[in-house]
Formats: sequence, C-alpha cells, structure tokens
Amino acid sequence: MGTEIERKFLVTSEAWRADAGQGTRLRQGYLHTGTPVVRIRQAGELAFLTIKGPGLLARAEYEYPIPPEDAEAMLASLCPPPIIDKTRHRLTQDGLTWEIDEFAGHLAGLVLAEIELVSADQAFTRPGWLGAEVTDDPRYQNAALSRADGLPA
Amino acid sequence: MGTEIERKFLVTSEAWRADAGQGTRLRQGYLHTGTPVVRIRQAGELAFLTIKGPGLLARAEYEYPIPPEDAEAMLASLCPPPIIDKTRHRLTQDGLTWEIDEFAGHLAGLVLAEIELVSADQAFTRPGWLGAEVTDDPRYQNAALSRADGLPA
Repeated sequence: MGTEIERKFLVTSEAWRADAGQGTRLRQGYLHTGTPVVRIRQAGELAFLTIKGPGLLARAEYEYPIPPEDAEAMLASLCPPPIIDKTRHRLTQDGLTWEIDEFAGHLAGLVLAEIELVSADQAFTRPGWLGAEVTDDPRYQNAALSRADGLPA
Repeated sequence: MGTEIERKFLVTSEAWRADAGQGTRLRQGYLHTGTPVVRIRQAGELAFLTIKGPGLLARAEYEYPIPPEDAEAMLASLCPPPIIDKTRHRLTQDGLTWEIDEFAGHLAGLVLAEIELVSADQAFTRPGWLGAEVTDDPRYQNAALSRADGLPA
C-alpha cells in the first residue's frame, strides 16, 4: 500500500515531445468506478489490477501484477466499454518525472501531464507546455474518462 | 481464469461435524457487490483478491494472492461493514468434497454447504444433513450476506 500525491494538468503545446521517450501503450478499464476504484491495466507486455481508495490528490493505492491474458479477458468481458487507450511518455526535469498521457480512441486529441510529489505543497518548475491544473476536476479522472463519450466539455 | 459450477444448500443437522476437520477461519468483504463481484478474503494466514463475473451456478472467476496486511487494511477501510466471518470445514464423501461454512458475527447460526461439480447435472449422493438447495436464491450469495443485517428471512 502507498499513498499517491499527484497533480494533473492539461498540456497546451507539442514542445514536450522533444524531450520525451517513445512511451508505453496502456489499455485500461474499470471493474468498478465508484469508491473504491478497481482498475485493470495492460502496460506493454505486463498487466496490473489496481485498487484506489477515495480522494483525488492523495489516496490509498494497492497494485498487483496479474497474468496479461486475464487482463485481456476482463477488459473484453467485465469492464464496461469504452476501454481507455493511451500512450504514456516519461520526461524528467529538475529531478522530477512528468508522465504525459496521449490518448487515442474515443479520447483522441486529449493530452494530460501528471507529476508525483512527496507533499501537496512541494514546489516545482512549470514547463513551458504546461496548461491549467485539473487535479481537482473529476471530469479528468481516468474512471470518469472511461465513462465519457469523448473529450470533456 | 476458471469457471465454477457450484451448488449451495442449507444444512439441517449437526451430523456433518463427526466427519469434518477443524476448518479454516475466513474473513471476507467486498470492494464491489454488483457485477463483477470484487472480494477480499483472509483465509487463515493467507489472503486473496477474487473477481467473479455474472451468474450464480457457473461464473468466470479470477483469484490472486495478496499480502495479508493489504487484505486487513482493505477489510478495515474500503469494504463496507459488516465483514463476513465464517469457518470453512471440508468433508469428502464418494470422492466429492463438500465445503461447509459455519457463520459467526451478524450471521451466527447460519450453516451452508457447497459442492463443486464438473457439470450442472452431475449426480451426487445427498448426505443426511443436507437441506434445501439455495443455489439460485440470491439471498444466500456471499455478497448479499455481506449486506444483510442478519439471517435471511
């Protein structure tokens, strides 16, 4: 068990691509999108089952590796569509790692950046491509995005 | 992944105790009781996270071992009370294994017997202590028992 402190932002330009790697494709769906969230994720050749407690900024999280074939079957049969399909890029700046999620499928065009911090008020340098913060906006939680018909209004 | 074919019965006497072992204490709660069911179970020194697809008699099931301390924390913080507390006894008869669940806590007095079969119409010998079948009775599903205030009416 760990507690995540994450801040999430919109991305306003393509400038991040120059410093980011090729990324990992993630496909994920939800067995439950209420409290707690129960998520199935395929990450490249690996797969995980993740349970997240209540809260947006800091929340309890339990994550377990599972057989990729189980994840494939549960995404196909037990997770309500649409399945989230995105590529996660990592980019390090000033010793902090940004995760930049480039969405495909029903959310094509959406790009979100996340940073993991040790405390809610930890200072960090804002990259030039960083847009508005959406940490507290429930429309940009992954569980909500999995229920969406398209980009948040 | 496996598919369970289980039949569940009430138990009408104490005669089963003569042939049953000491049993294993199980404590379990639910992260989600709809479809799919997501269950946390402590079984003696072990713990498991289990996902069960729709259906009563035959259903898809995925089960993963998890650290017992994670199970303890999730039962305490993420599973709505009451937590099911029961002792599971095993008893073999004619090559088939009965699981006899003796409930404690809010369901004290309830005893249920389950048998796992390879097909829904497989024949088996009814022990003398076996009562009415409740396989198709949603009140006796564990997820429903976890929501109940007491014994099913």
